[in-house]
Amino acid sequence: MNEPPLDPRLAADCHLLGRLGTTRLLLLDDARFPWFILVPATEAVEVCDLSTAERQAVWAQVNEVSQLVRALFPVDKLNVAAIGNVVSQLHLHVVGRRRDDDCWPGVVWGAGGGEPYAAAEVARIRAAVAAHPGVCRT
Amino acid sequence: MNEPPLDPRLAADCHLLGRLGTTRLLLLDDARFPWFILVPATEAVEVCDLSTAERQAVWAQVNEVSQLVRALFPVDKLNVAAIGNVVSQLHLHVVGRRRDDDCWPGVVWGAGGGEPYAAAEVARIRAAVAAHPGVCRT
Repeated sequence: MNEPPLDPRLAADCHLLGRLGTTRLLLLDDARFPWFILVPATEAVEVCDLSTAERQAVWAQVNEVSQLVRALFPVDKLNVAAIGNVVSQLHLHVVGRRRDDDCWPGVVWGAGGGEPYAAAEVARIRAAVAAHPGVCRT
Repeated sequence: MNEPPLDPRLAADCHLLGRLGTTRLLLLDDARFPWFILVPATEAVEVCDLSTAERQAVWAQVNEVSQLVRALFPVDKLNVAAIGNVVSQLHLHVVGRRRDDDCWPGVVWGAGGGEPYAAAEVARIRAAVAAHPGVCRT
């Protein structure tokens, strides 16, 4: 399979942390939330347009990342979503939320005001994520 | 299994359309969007706390409802999410979006301003949904 290039907006807004299978795992550059984005290697725009096997693989990867977020960050709630109204390349959000975070109980999408990570913090998260079973460094 | 009662806020804000297996299928009473909500019969709060079999069943049901929304409504994009910051009972949103809808390209959560359906429209949607494979009338 030829992997589609990463959407330029995702590439500009995120750090590439690694992969789960062929799916890219990104960290949104917003230190307010542990906000992970999975980008399956597909031209499909909707999850329901994937094959059954692809769909099951993607949701299993979302599950892995959900567990990872809870393992690495203090989190009261997970928010999982496939939206794609702005960036049509299929991508899935897994966001760790806290009752004292900037947007609680509202959603993070459209909230604006991202705070970039310090480079050392991205390196720390990248190393922690790479140690998680199923995640490969790129 | 004893089914947990429906959260009072979901019960107040939605119409019960039917079931997929043991999962309740609700229609949010907001005529601006075809906004469906699945409520699996579980005490778990996060999808990742379901068993593997339960999780696969829930995502398969989300897939069924995604197909249903596209079959019954003119839709440019599907938005699928498990959020639960306000209502902790596990529920999954499947929302059909159009580029000319009230919130595009923003998300629907937190947008306020719901427009209740006319009773005849709910009846029409309930009948159409009940005709979809896998959906049982309650």
